This record gives sequence, C-alpha cells and structure tokens, in this order.
Amino acid sequence: MIIAMKPEASEEQIQEVCEQIKKYGYHPHLIRGEERVVIGAVGSGDNKDHLHNLIAVPGVENVVPILQPYKLVNRQLKQEKTTIRVGDLEIGGDRLVVMAGPCSVETREQLMETAIAVKAAGAHILRGGAYKPRTSPYDFQGLEEEGLKLLAEARDKTGLKVVTEVVTTEDTELVAKYADILQVGARNMQNFALLKRLGKINKPVLLKRGMSSTIKELLLSAEYIASHGNHQVMLCERGIRTFETATRNTLDISAVPLLQELSHLPVIVDPSHATGKRSLVSPLAKASIAAGADGLIIEVHPRPQEAWSDGPQSLTLPAFAELMQTIKPYVELESRRLN
Amino acid sequence: MIIAMKPEASEEQIQEVCEQIKKYGYHPHLIRGEERVVIGAVGSGDNKDHLHNLIAVPGVENVVPILQPYKLVNRQLKQEKTTIRVGDLEIGGDRLVVMAGPCSVETREQLMETAIAVKAAGAHILRGGAYKPRTSPYDFQGLEEEGLKLLAEARDKTGLKVVTEVVTTEDTELVAKYADILQVGARNMQNFALLKRLGKINKPVLLKRGMSSTIKELLLSAEYIASHGNHQVMLCERGIRTFETATRNTLDISAVPLLQELSHLPVIVDPSHATGKRSLVSPLAKASIAAGADGLIIEVHPRPQEAWSDGPQSLTLPAFAELMQTIKPYVELESRRLN
Amino acid sequence: MIIAMKPEASEEQIQEVCEQIKKYGYHPHLIRGEERVVIGAVGSGDNKDHLHNLIAVPGVENVVPILQPYKLVNRQLKQEKTTIRVGDLEIGGDRLVVMAGPCSVETREQLMETAIAVKAAGAHILRGGAYKPRTSPYDFQGLEEEGLKLLAEARDKTGLKVVTEVVTTEDTELVAKYADILQVGARNMQNFALLKRLGKINKPVLLKRGMSSTIKELLLSAEYIASHGNHQVMLCERGIRTFETATRNTLDISAVPLLQELSHLPVIVDPSHATGKRSLVSPLAKASIAAGADGLIIEVHPRPQEAWSDGPQSLTLPAFAELMQTIKPYVELESRRLN
Amino acid sequence: MIIAMKPEASEEQIQEVCEQIKKYGYHPHLIRGEERVVIGAVGSGDNKDHLHNLIAVPGVENVVPILQPYKLVNRQLKQEKTTIRVGDLEIGGDRLVVMAGPCSVETREQLMETAIAVKAAGAHILRGGAYKPRTSPYDFQGLEEEGLKLLAEARDKTGLKVVTEVVTTEDTELVAKYADILQVGARNMQNFALLKRLGKINKPVLLKRGMSSTIKELLLSAEYIASHGNHQVMLCERGIRTFETATRNTLDISAVPLLQELSHLPVIVDPSHATGKRSLVSPLAKASIAAGADGLIIEVHPRPQEAWSDGPQSLTLPAFAELMQTIKPYVELESRRLN
Repeated sequence: MIIAMKPEASEEQIQEVCEQIKKYGYHPHLIRGEERVVIGAVGSGDNKDHLHNLIAVPGVENVVPILQPYKLVNRQLKQEKTTIRVGDLEIGGDRLVVMAGPCSVETREQLMETAIAVKAAGAHILRGGAYKPRTSPYDFQGLEEEGLKLLAEARDKTGLKVVTEVVTTEDTELVAKYADILQVGARNMQNFALLKRLGKINKPVLLKRGMSSTIKELLLSAEYIASHGNHQVMLCERGIRTFETATRNTLDISAVPLLQELSHLPVIVDPSHATGKRSLVSPLAKASIAAGADGLIIEVHPRPQEAWSDGPQSLTLPAFAELMQTIKPYVELESRRLN
Repeated sequence: MIIAMKPEASEEQIQEVCEQIKKYGYHPHLIRGEERVVIGAVGSGDNKDHLHNLIAVPGVENVVPILQPYKLVNRQLKQEKTTIRVGDLEIGGDRLVVMAGPCSVETREQLMETAIAVKAAGAHILRGGAYKPRTSPYDFQGLEEEGLKLLAEARDKTGLKVVTEVVTTEDTELVAKYADILQVGARNMQNFALLKRLGKINKPVLLKRGMSSTIKELLLSAEYIASHGNHQVMLCERGIRTFETATRNTLDISAVPLLQELSHLPVIVDPSHATGKRSLVSPLAKASIAAGADGLIIEVHPRPQEAWSDGPQSLTLPAFAELMQTIKPYVELESRRLN
Repeated sequence: MIIAMKPEASEEQIQEVCEQIKKYGYHPHLIRGEERVVIGAVGSGDNKDHLHNLIAVPGVENVVPILQPYKLVNRQLKQEKTTIRVGDLEIGGDRLVVMAGPCSVETREQLMETAIAVKAAGAHILRGGAYKPRTSPYDFQGLEEEGLKLLAEARDKTGLKVVTEVVTTEDTELVAKYADILQVGARNMQNFALLKRLGKINKPVLLKRGMSSTIKELLLSAEYIASHGNHQVMLCERGIRTFETATRNTLDISAVPLLQELSHLPVIVDPSHATGKRSLVSPLAKASIAAGADGLIIEVHPRPQEAWSDGPQSLTLPAFAELMQTIKPYVELESRRLN
Repeated sequence: MIIAMKPEASEEQIQEVCEQIKKYGYHPHLIRGEERVVIGAVGSGDNKDHLHNLIAVPGVENVVPILQPYKLVNRQLKQEKTTIRVGDLEIGGDRLVVMAGPCSVETREQLMETAIAVKAAGAHILRGGAYKPRTSPYDFQGLEEEGLKLLAEARDKTGLKVVTEVVTTEDTELVAKYADILQVGARNMQNFALLKRLGKINKPVLLKRGMSSTIKELLLSAEYIASHGNHQVMLCERGIRTFETATRNTLDISAVPLLQELSHLPVIVDPSHATGKRSLVSPLAKASIAAGADGLIIEVHPRPQEAWSDGPQSLTLPAFAELMQTIKPYVELESRRLN
C-alpha cells in the first residue's frame, strides 16, 4: 500500500502516519520527493482496511493499493490453466464448449425439442432456467423444481450435460441434485451468501459477471467460491451496462483475453444476453472465439416469437445449427475442436 | 405497446403482426404514416413478453412499451404519500428522519459509544451492519447474530430504533427478530428471492438502489416486496456507478424528486456511500434535504481511522453532532422538523 | 510516480527499470516489500510520459501517478477563491449569480420578452445560444451573428450581462465582441484548439463539463485556458452521461463541493440540461445552492411548447419568477445574497 | 412520433394535443387503450422539435420518436455498401484495410523507420498524429505542419496512403493538402463546425466514435459530413468510456455488426485505443475481423518505451509484423484478402 502525503504535510504528520503503519503491523518506508513525501507500507499486517483509513489522518492525500487482492484465482500464482471435468467433458481444455438452450424451461415439449436439436447440431451442454430472476414481479418466474426435473429428463434423453441457475442459498442443494453445473446470474454475482454456499458444493459453477461489476470484482467473487472450498469455477462475460441503448448490454470483449491473463479459470461468453438481438449473436460468437474464449452459452428456442422470456435474442433451431457450422473454422484456427 | 414496422414492410407482414397481436389477446390498431406503418396493441392480453417477441417477426423494426410496469408503488395510482410507522416514529411524514451509526458493528464499546452520541445529537435510528457484504472474501464479514444482539442492546439503552442489513433469505426471520427496519443492500436490490421473503415479513424495509440499477428497476424491486404483501418500503438513493473515479459513486440527486413524482414511497439518501469521502457528506446531506428527501442515513464512527470498514467516509462523533446542527435550518425551510 | 514490479520480477529487471528512470531524469527509490518491489520515481524529469511507458518494460506490473497534473487551477497551490468581475457583477463572491434565458435565440420578440422577464425576476445574466451544437444536422443550428446582435440589444435594454456559446476558433473574436462571457459547451470541453484560443481572449469563460468527462479532465481543460493566459474561468456541472435514462443526464452534485475543494475557480450548476425535465429544475436548483454552488444557469422560454430546442426542460416566465422566490432563503442560509 | 397521454388525461387535454399536432403540420391519429390514449403524429411537419415539446402540455406523459433521424447514411435507404477509393486502394470492399503507425509523429527517423516496417509487414495506410489533442496542456501537442510534411515524405518513400487527425476548422485545408484521409478524433466527434467543414472537402474522412457517444449519435455525426456534401465517410469504433478501469476504454464489439446493419458506410476498429494495453491488441484485432470490420487502425512504434504518447498500447515493429501474420487466416475466413 502506498500513502501519498499532501505537499504541505508537516514532519509531525508524516511521523504520525509512520506510527500508525507500525501500529497496524506494517513497516513504513519513506520516499522524499521534490514536492511531497510518499510512504510505502510493507509487510502483511493485521488488516489492510486499517491502511485505507489512513486517508482520514491529517496530511494524507491519497492511499493507493498495489497488490491484487485475489490469490487463489490469480494466474501470477498458478500459471497452468484450470480445466473442469463434467463427466467425460472437459472445460478449459482444447475443446470449445457450447452451451445452448432456452432462456426459460417452459414445457416438456419445448425443452425436449430444443435439447434434441441442439445436441444434433453439436452442443455439449443444455442450458435452461427453472428459477428466473425477472426484473418485474409480474413476469414469469420459472417452473422451479418441475423445471429441474425436465432438465434432468432431457439430459437422460440426449446425453447433454445440464447448466441451470440457482438464485438462493436455500435451493442450492436441490439445484445441485439435478444440474451438472450451477449458474450464478449477473444479478447475484455479489450475493456473497450464495457464493459461500456454492463454495461448499462439489459441482462446477458458471459465474456470470454482474452488469456493472469490474473485472477485479468478478475475480473476487470467484475467489469467494474458491476460498470456501470449490475451485471448479468458470467465468462468464455476458455484457456490461453502459450508456449505449442500441444493444441490451455492451459485450466487453477485452475482458476475454484480459481474464485469461489475470486468472487461470476458463472463460465463457454469452453473446445472447450481451446484445439482446438475434442478428448480432453469430458475429459476436465468432469474435469471442477469436478473442480466446473457452466456450459459448447461447439462447435457442424452437419458436422465439412465443418464448416466455428473451424471445428477441433467441436463435431458432435451424439458426443455431447454422451457427455451429459458421464457428467451426474459427474454432479450428484457435487450434481447438468442437467435438 | 407500439410496434413500428420497417419502411419496406409488406402488407402481408403487417397483417401477420396484426394476427399475432390478436392471438396474444390484444387488439391491433394501425397508424399509416408517410414512411411506415405503426401498430398499437391495445388491451390487457395474456403476457406482454409475447408482444416483445414481435421484434422477431419479419418486417418489424421496433417494439416500444408505453405503460409503466409497476402498479402498487406508482403515484399515478395512489396520490397520497405513504408513511411508515416504526413504534412512535413516522417515516415519510413531516419529520426528516436521520439514521446514523457505524458501517459495521465491531464491539459493544464501539457500538454503545456511537449510539449514545448519535442519540444525543438528535438521530432517530441506529444503523450498523451485522452481516457485511464485502467485495473480498478476506475482508471482515460481520459479527452476525452477536452483532444483532448488540444492536438490540443499544436500542434498549438509547431508545433509538434499529436498521440493519439482511443478506440472505435464511437469515430473514432472525434479523427481523432483532431489527426494527430491514435493509436490502445495493448488491441485493435484484436478489428477488430475498425481496419475496421480505414481502412476507411484517417489518419495514429500506431498499437501497443497486449500483447500476435504473429508477424503473428500483421501483420494480419495491413492487416485488409490495406485491408479496409488505407495503412498508422505503427507497434509498446511495449513489450509482459511473465512469467518475474521484468519488466512490455518483449520487443521483435527481432521483430524489423524480422518485417522489413517480412513487408514493418515502425516499432516503445515503451521502456516505454515495461519495466515500467524509468532507462531502455534509454538503450532500444539505443538498438531499433541499431536493426533497424524507430522511438520511449516515455513517458515524468514534474513531474512523480504526474502523474495520468504510473508515474514509465515516464522520466522527463531533462531526456528526455538527452536521445535525448544520442541516436543521434546511429541514425547517422544507417545512419539516428534526424532532 | 510509483512503479510496481511483478512478484516474479528478476533483480536484473529491477535494475533495468532503475536505469530507465535515471535516463529520463528522475531518481529511483526502491521499496522491497514481502511480495514484490515497488519503485518511486522522484524529481521533475524530462517528460512524465516516459515514466508511463515503463509499463512496457519486462517485470513491471503497474505505473501509478501520485501528483495532480493541474497546477494553475489547483486549490492546493492557491487557497484563496477566484472571483471574476463582469462589469459591476462579481462571480464567485458572496452573490449567488443566476444566468437565465432561452436555449436558442429565436426571434427578437422571444428574446426581449424573456430578457425583460428574467431581469424583473432577479436574474443577473442573460443566456441564449446563437450558435447551436445540435446532434442532428437537420435540427435548427442557430441565428449566428444575427443572434449575437439580438443578445447585445437585450443587454442594452435590460442591463443584464450576456453569456453565449462559441463553437469554433474562427468565431471566437466575433462572439467576444458581443458577449460578456463566452461559453464552452459540453461537446467542446476537449476541443483543445478552442480552449487555447480562449486562453488568449480577455473575457471570462464558462466551461461546461463534458458529458463523460471526469472531474480531473474538467480541471485540465480549465488549465488549458489558464495556461494560455486567461485565468477568468468558471466551471459548470451540467450532468454526466450514465446508464440512467429517466433523466436526460445525471447531475453529479458531488462535483460541486469536490470542485470547490480541488480548485479555486467558481462553480456554476445547470439543472436544466442535467435533468431535461421541467419539474426537476427547482428541487435541483435548491440542492445545488445547498451543495455550495456559486451560481446557476437556467433555461427559460416564454412559450416552452413552441421552443425550437430544449422545450421540455425550459421554465415558463412565471415559473422562473417563482423559482427565484423559492431559492432566496436557501441562498441566505449559505450566507449569500441574490442581489 | 408517438404521444402517450396520462391515464387521468381529460378529453379536453387530448383534443388540445391533437390541435397542437395539426398546428405543427402533422396529422393526429388516436389509439384509445384500456388505460390511456396514445396519439400518433403522422406526416413530415414543420419541425419535429415542436412535437418533443408536447411533453410540456398538460395530460401528456411521454413523447417517443419512431423514425431514425439519419437518412443519407442509413442502410434502409441504400442497401449497397459504400466503398471509398484512395488512389488504387478501396476501403469497404473485399480487402481488409490496415492502417498502422505511431500515435504521434515525433522525428523523421522514427516515422520513416516505422513506415518502412509497416509497409513491409503489409499495412496499406500510415497513421500518425501531427496535431495531438492531449488531456493536459503540459503534454506534447504535436509537430503540426512539420509533422504533416514528414507524413507526406513517408508516403512518397513507401507508397503508403496517409491518415492523420485534423483538430480545428482553420487547419482543415492545410491537413487536406498533405493527407489522403482526414481523421476526426473521438473528442471532436460532436465538433459540428469541424464536421460541416469536412463536408465541403473532397477527401475521405475517418470519423472516430466519441468516448460516450451512442451509435445513433455517431451516425448523426456522419450524417453531418454527408449532408454537407462529402459522402466518403468511414466509421471508427475505438472503445467507449465505462465504469471498467482495467482497460483504457471498453471496445464495443457489438457496434461493428450493428453499424453494418444500420449503415452502408465502412467500419474500422481501433484496438489500440480501445484497450490501452499492448497484449490485448492482437486478440481484439482478430475479434474485430471476425465481427465484420472492414479495417483496423493500429498503433506501432519502433521503441514503445520511448514514445512521446501512448507507449503502453503501441506494438513494436516485430510485434506488428507478427500481428499481420496472425490475422491473415481470419481475414480469409471472412472471404476477404489483405493484399
């Protein structure tokens, strides 16, 4: 931690800061510049919050952290990429993993029709929401356990793995019973009680980036899960909230290579939520692969115009099959394979 | 709902959209402009999501909603302001309500010292976190039930009411046992499972706006609580996330009069989290009152430089007493009173 | 400038960075922490850009600046507030200055009617655009020199001073011939050629904050004008662009006290552009005064529903007169006066 | 334009709005819904600003535009893609065009070394700033005309075309004398005086998106240039400003296919400014091509650690040569060619 003193700070104020730093268990280290004094706090100390509080001490202008606060998910400390096994499927390895399915599980017929079609097109994992976090209480909230059962049935029928969202600690074990991968939605990225609970589950987690969460916050949320015991975490870029209203969100494509630099965890991209617009899904899927993503998660619906949620961004079944053909050469250019 | 057709849309496409609208239980209403056709969908229909899906129909350019989706918290439908009673205290009435206390409950001594001082200075409600949603898993996470007990003890000693945060559905009843008002933090504003549970509790809720939530989303989250049975909701503006890094967040002061226009619920402002900077708390407290806030929530600590969280934005006890003096004439100018 | 090395940086890499620092004319100062080495670069050096480039040197993780880059407008270096004289009017002193008038100068009749009314209501300065920066080329672009002449005529008739926008270097002298204060609009805050030209004019400048400009960038734009010779600069907060769409912009009210802390220049608030909504202008005007603004700039039109631009946010003449009455006690609470 | 009345609007208020609409030269068209009346204003009218002002009429709740305000650059009105010829080079056709060079022209040696190397590596156009819009007045401001002469000299030597920024109307003809393409920087995207002047120049323009400009605003700025007579406009996505601080800006990759949908103009991507980080340039260049870009503009410097500006994001000469090899198969996958 670096503490910059004000130009007019007195010698007494500088000494006072040094004393505080010692009191908190760190060693102060002075740099006397031409305009001001800067103090480095070295050591592991009691609590870095104390150092942040130095901003309140007279004469202090600024307190700047130097170290990254995440450890377990940090690539500086573990160079080798993490791969996550889901049965015979490996995520984060040389296969580009595709998750596909409807936004919401609506009916057995809708789900089975979709599952069979996406499997035939080459998808590896079936997505579908049984618990739906909807902005309005008057919108469809999901089929809940009935939806989970339908997902399990679709898995049995097709051999696809299943990823589905968990929205509250109380349902964690129930969802884990049916799903292969548990998804944390963007709105729950900083639901720390939920993250802690997922840290104790022995199932992989797909952690979606919050709508206005920084990359650092995303990694710290992954660190919550890892530090509570579950290291099987995938990061998912799904678009952030900006001033632009022409798309539903803004896909932060830079996050893909940057997360690969900063962390050893697999990185998945969701071009459907990122754009909210069917026609943009295919170009952004290609771009995500070219930027280094380990996988894609894509909304597909047999009849988007009848979908109970997210119809405008869902691909039809033939459009998804076409997408799988379209991305194939891009996957190969990245020295990866689809199957 | 308004459906705008593309300029080149064919007559068949227009008829197809009209048929869909009828199928969903609405009546189509055509406007033939010089450049294109616009169709209004009138009626209450089955499900407005279906209308959104019309964006996927060939020839459709845009689908624009006209109605506000929140009903119970909408001032158009209930002009009279809601007041919330907490024992002998009324929130949303002619008293400007002040909530004050530390970010985290740390020790009995710290809490009692603060409670006695803020009571003496004129505060009405004691704030203090027992469950702390922290960005990093390595930061202090709160004293949990022990903290709740200390808050209850401070209430007994001072007569202050108590507001504290609940972070997960499972703790809702426990927190409700000790607290007078349950706070939903910014990171949980769209934790819909939690909102539904709070809808079944007979205690007032202080709902903080999410860091990147729109005013409409805030009102829909309040609608979640109200539609599940609990109408005692206060809205809290606590700063939104923007590109500006000179302050911790950006206080959206316009939200205060706008929320008063759009909703009948009381509006509280948190200038501490909004700015993250002690020196800005007092000017923003004055500004919030002048903009029409019903109350303030302010972080106070006996020794901010030793606080376990949020030290840089916490007022000292004398600074808080001074703030109460400073705001008094502004409260009176708004034809309100502090005690 | 602080240079943080990566944990795995070698001793050779550290020495290489120290050599570079010396080569650029600074002195390196090492802090050896438990996890990594941090190097302070002390001195005034040749060019701080060179230090930023150290990010490119192997082993370097981060380069963090410590000093504020603005000097002339920095309150640390000149504690006393700047006041700006416009004839017998002083801005930044104990008078709260009110600028009022239409968005665009449309006709002689419209301008004179407005000028006479705002003067009668107590305004000090007439605003009105003769050159209009409009998002669409098909919108009204302003009366240009004819508009300037009308503004001068309104000044002669009422005694009000005149503030109007200049949009290009080539018109600077022409606008300066007619106006008392030259306004730089939000879209031109980083039109550095224009700022340099205004640095050579002997007329006060009202510098509006760019829609997505940080406080630091605003102060650097003010520094452009000051460093080219013109120290008569007023800063104007007019709302920033955020994800919120319920208001035209988001008024950054924290910027008001923060700019007063960081700079000695007067701070003006524009609640009309900040909100885009007539009903919010009065509460935000009060809030701005309570937050410490030195003045207000407000859009007023005799018949807002016929305005050629910005009708929805313009006050009627009686509404402006009422606003002046409403703000009076708030001005007095701040130990200021309106006339 | 659609005007939504409040639920409680009276019949008189509705008639008043209809009368106003007629007065402005449009035809009112009523839709009576279950909760409220919605009125369409049909026709071309006098001035659409008047319709916006209806928001001020009692009983009106909202005024929603339906039509896109840009015409000349709109793909709905001209399906065929625009190609721009610069000598023997065609932009927007089947060649993926690469512009490369230093941020600033610093010295003859630096520029020639770079020009020769990027030419050898396969670039088509040399970039380099002679007029530099810098945030701080104390940063290097460019070599001005001397820089333009060096660019022209580099063109003569290498056969590369030259793109360089123009920052003020007064220099437009001078820059046009030396450059093949005139660049409008992000900070000048809404410098409308400059756009109008460029509309009268017979040279192609590279229009960079403003840091916080929407896609609609970008297209309207292009419309400014086109409507003043110059249809040779390229759009450039270079990252927008968001809350994320891990990258310099956030590359809005969705803008690439969306701009191709909305407009017939060529779309160029600048991955250097978008990220500010050398290691991200190559993955984002690949992603941009996969998303459908017509070209790239990339910062290259022989010795980035000595660059006078933008060192951290500049590629070395060998890194640029490697990039050209890396992108080749991606270009081919898009059925394009590099040379």
